[in-house]
Amino acid sequence: MKAVIINFKAYEEGSGERAVSLAKAVEDVSKKVDFYMAVCPPFVDLSDVMGGVEIDVFAQHTDAVSYGSHTGRITPEMLKEKGVKGSLINHSERRLRLADIDYLVSKFRELELISVVCTNNVATTKAAAALSPDYVAIEPPELIGSGIPVSKAEPEVVENSVKAAKEIDSSVKVLCGAGIATYEDVVAAIDLGADGVLLASGVVKAKDQKKALEELVGLR
Amino acid sequence: MKAVIINFKAYEEGSGERAVSLAKAVEDVSKKVDFYMAVCPPFVDLSDVMGGVEIDVFAQHTDAVSYGSHTGRITPEMLKEKGVKGSLINHSERRLRLADIDYLVSKFRELELISVVCTNNVATTKAAAALSPDYVAIEPPELIGSGIPVSKAEPEVVENSVKAAKEIDSSVKVLCGAGIATYEDVVAAIDLGADGVLLASGVVKAKDQKKALEELVGLR
Amino acid sequence: MKAVIINFKAYEEGSGERAVSLAKAVEDVSKKVDFYMAVCPPFVDLSDVMGGVEIDVFAQHTDAVSYGSHTGRITPEMLKEKGVKGSLINHSERRLRLADIDYLVSKFRELELISVVCTNNVATTKAAAALSPDYVAIEPPELIGSGIPVSKAEPEVVENSVKAAKEIDSSVKVLCGAGIATYEDVVAAIDLGADGVLLASGVVKAKDQKKALEELVGLR
Amino acid sequence: MKAVIINFKAYEEGSGERAVSLAKAVEDVSKKVDFYMAVCPPFVDLSDVMGGVEIDVFAQHTDAVSYGSHTGRITPEMLKEKGVKGSLINHSERRLRLADIDYLVSKFRELELISVVCTNNVATTKAAAALSPDYVAIEPPELIGSGIPVSKAEPEVVENSVKAAKEIDSSVKVLCGAGIATYEDVVAAIDLGADGVLLASGVVKAKDQKKALEELVGLR
Repeated sequence: MKAVIINFKAYEEGSGERAVSLAKAVEDVSKKVDFYMAVCPPFVDLSDVMGGVEIDVFAQHTDAVSYGSHTGRITPEMLKEKGVKGSLINHSERRLRLADIDYLVSKFRELELISVVCTNNVATTKAAAALSPDYVAIEPPELIGSGIPVSKAEPEVVENSVKAAKEIDSSVKVLCGAGIATYEDVVAAIDLGADGVLLASGVVKAKDQKKALEELVGLR
Repeated sequence: MKAVIINFKAYEEGSGERAVSLAKAVEDVSKKVDFYMAVCPPFVDLSDVMGGVEIDVFAQHTDAVSYGSHTGRITPEMLKEKGVKGSLINHSERRLRLADIDYLVSKFRELELISVVCTNNVATTKAAAALSPDYVAIEPPELIGSGIPVSKAEPEVVENSVKAAKEIDSSVKVLCGAGIATYEDVVAAIDLGADGVLLASGVVKAKDQKKALEELVGLR
Repeated sequence: MKAVIINFKAYEEGSGERAVSLAKAVEDVSKKVDFYMAVCPPFVDLSDVMGGVEIDVFAQHTDAVSYGSHTGRITPEMLKEKGVKGSLINHSERRLRLADIDYLVSKFRELELISVVCTNNVATTKAAAALSPDYVAIEPPELIGSGIPVSKAEPEVVENSVKAAKEIDSSVKVLCGAGIATYEDVVAAIDLGADGVLLASGVVKAKDQKKALEELVGLR
Repeated sequence: MKAVIINFKAYEEGSGERAVSLAKAVEDVSKKVDFYMAVCPPFVDLSDVMGGVEIDVFAQHTDAVSYGSHTGRITPEMLKEKGVKGSLINHSERRLRLADIDYLVSKFRELELISVVCTNNVATTKAAAALSPDYVAIEPPELIGSGIPVSKAEPEVVENSVKAAKEIDSSVKVLCGAGIATYEDVVAAIDLGADGVLLASGVVKAKDQKKALEELVGLR
C-alpha cells in the first residue's frame, strides 16, 4: 500500500486542538481510500492526537540519545512507550549529523519503530539507504513549501533516488516530498517509482484542510 | 513563597506513566508544605501530566521560533495553548545562544509564561538577569548530578549570584541548582539568599521518590 | 580614539591574496586619520595578513575551548601565540551560547586579547556588557548588509544600547554595526554615543575598496 | 602507496611554531619510507606550515558554504586558493550533518581537493562511501586517543568497513583510525585491507615526536 504521511510542522493550523481535529480528518479520509495514511504532530500534541485517532502517529524528530541526563530531549524509548509508531529523522528543518541518523535508524529497528529519513538529493538518498531505514523521503529543499511538486520540477531526482536507494537496499521504501498538493502529484510520484509521499503545507496550510485531503487522495 | 522546581530530564524514572505518578507525588507533598512546587516532564508527557495534577507544569526547553515551518520544534505559543505554565531555558544540557535566550524571555513575558533561565556562574547569572526573566537558576556544571550541593561546595557562587542578579534587576528571582537533595541543602540555599531550588536526580533518581520528596521539603 | 573595525567575512574580495592587499589599504588609510583601525580576515589568512601589515589583526570567531582534542577548532591561546590582537565573538553569522561567550570574554581578559562581542538589540547588549568585554558591537540583524545604517534607521537602538551598556559597566566600549558605509554614518554613530563602528560589505564588497575606505573615514 | 595522515587537532604540541617543526619532522621521515604522508594543522597554522614543507597539507575541517556572508567560516574555495590539498570532513570532534558532508565531498571533487570523511562504524562507513569521497576514515569513537588500536580491539570493524565501502564504490580508499601508535598497528590495519591510517595523539602527544614517527613507519 502506498503511503501518504502528513507533517504538521510547527504550523499554527496543525497545533493544539487543531492537531487533533486535523488528525481526525486524515483518519476519516484514510477509511475511504487505499493509502496508508499517517500524521506527524508536534511533540506536545502526540498524546492528545493518539487519544483521538487510531491511525498511525509519528513524531517529527527524535533525539539521538537514550534515557538519561538529557534535559529537553525526546528519546526513541519515550516514543515507543507512548505508542508513537515512528518518526521523521533528519527533516530539512531539523538536520542531523550522520552518526546520529545512524544511531536513530539502528535504535528504531531494535525498538520496532518506523524510521523515515529525509534527504535532499540523489547522493544523500543513497547514503541514507545504506543505513537501511524503513523509508527515505527525498525532498529537494528548494521545492519545500513551494507548491511546485518535485515529481514535475525534477522527475529525474525522484527516479534516480528510487533507483539509487533500491540498488543499495531493495527493502528501503522511497517517499517523494516537497511541493506535493494534488492527486496528480501523488500519482506522478508513484509513477516515478515512489512508495508514497510526504507532505505538509499542501494540507495543513490549506484554507479547507478536509477538501485538500480529499483532493490529495483522489476523492474529488 | 520559596520555589522547588523538579526537572524530570529524560530520566526513565520521570518519563511516560512514571512522569504522571511522580508529578502526583509532588502535588501531594506540595499540599503539606509552604513551598511553590512545580514539575518539568518531557515534552511528550506534558499533556498527560497536566491531565493528572493541578500544580504548575513547565517544559524543559522551548525553541526560539514562532508558529511556522519548523519541523520538530516546540514554540512558546504551543506551550501557552496547552496550558503549560513556563519553561526552563538554557539548561546546561540544552544551552542556547544569547540572542535566542533573549527572544524566549521576551516572548514569555508577552505570553505571560514563566521563564527560568539556567546559568553556570556569577557572570552569566548577571548577563541573564539583564534580560529580566522571572527566574535565573544558577547551576555550576561540575556539581550537576554530583550529590554535592552548590550551597555547600561553593556558597559564595550562590551569594554572589543573588547579589549580582538583584543589582541588575531586583525583581529577578534566583534559584539555586546542582547537587540539591536534602532539606538542609534547601535551607542553606535560602539562607544564602536564593528564592528556591531547581533539582532533578536528587528526587527523580531516588530509590523512593516520595520519601526523597518529603525529606527535601522537611517533612521527615 | 574612535574605532573602525573591518570584518572581511568569507567574502571572496577579502580572502587569500586579496585579504593581504585590503589590509594594506586599511593600513595606508589609517595613517592619515585619527581612527583606531583594525581588520578581521578569515582564519587561514591571519598569518599572511599579519606578515603584511602592522595594524591590529583580529579573528572573526574563536572557539570556547583550550588546547586539546578539538579537531577543527581555534582556541584563544592559538590566537595569542600567533600575535592576533583579539576576535569578534558571537557575530550574527556565528552565534554562540551564553556560557561560551562568557568563557571567551573571561579567557581573553586573562590572555590580554581584545574581545568584541556582537549583539542584536538593547537587551542582549546589556547582557553582553554584564560580562565586561572590551567592546560590544550592536548590529540589528535586519540591517546587516542592507546598506541602511543603523544610526539612521534605528538611532534609538544605538543610543539605548550605549546607555544600557555603560550603566552596567562604564568601561565597556560600544561599536555600532550594520549598514555603515559612509563618513556620515560613522559621524552619526559617534554622535549617538558609539565608540566606533564595525562594518563589512560597505568596504569589502565596494567596487573600489580604497575609495570606499577613504570615504568612510572622511578623506574624500 | 599506503597513506599515513597525521591530525594535529588543537593540541598545544601541534600548534603555532610547533606545527611547523612537527610537519618538518613528518617530511623528513616521509623521504625515507614508502608511505604517502600528510599533515593536518589548525587553520591558523596552514599558511606557515605550507611555507615550511613540501608534503601535502590538509585542513582539519571545512565549512559547507561558499564565499559570502559567513563570518568565521572557512570555505573549500579558500583552501584551494591557499594551496591546501584537502581536508578531514566530519571528524568525531567536529561532526557534520549528512547534507553538509555531501555538499563538501561534491564541492571538493569539483575543486580537485582530497576529501577524507571520518566515520564511526560499518554503517556510517557504507553511507559515507555512497557519497564517493576520496577516503573514508573509520574511527570507533571509544578508541580515539585510547592507545588501543582499532586493528587490534575491533579488527572486524576495519575488515567490514573496507568490505562495505568497496562494495558501494570500489574507488573509495579506507583509512583506519583510533588508537594507532606503532608500526605493528599500521601493518595490522593494512593487512585488514585498509589503504592507510589516520592518527593524532600517538605522534603529536608523544614525548619524542620524531622517534614516535620513526617507530610508526617502521624506521626503528
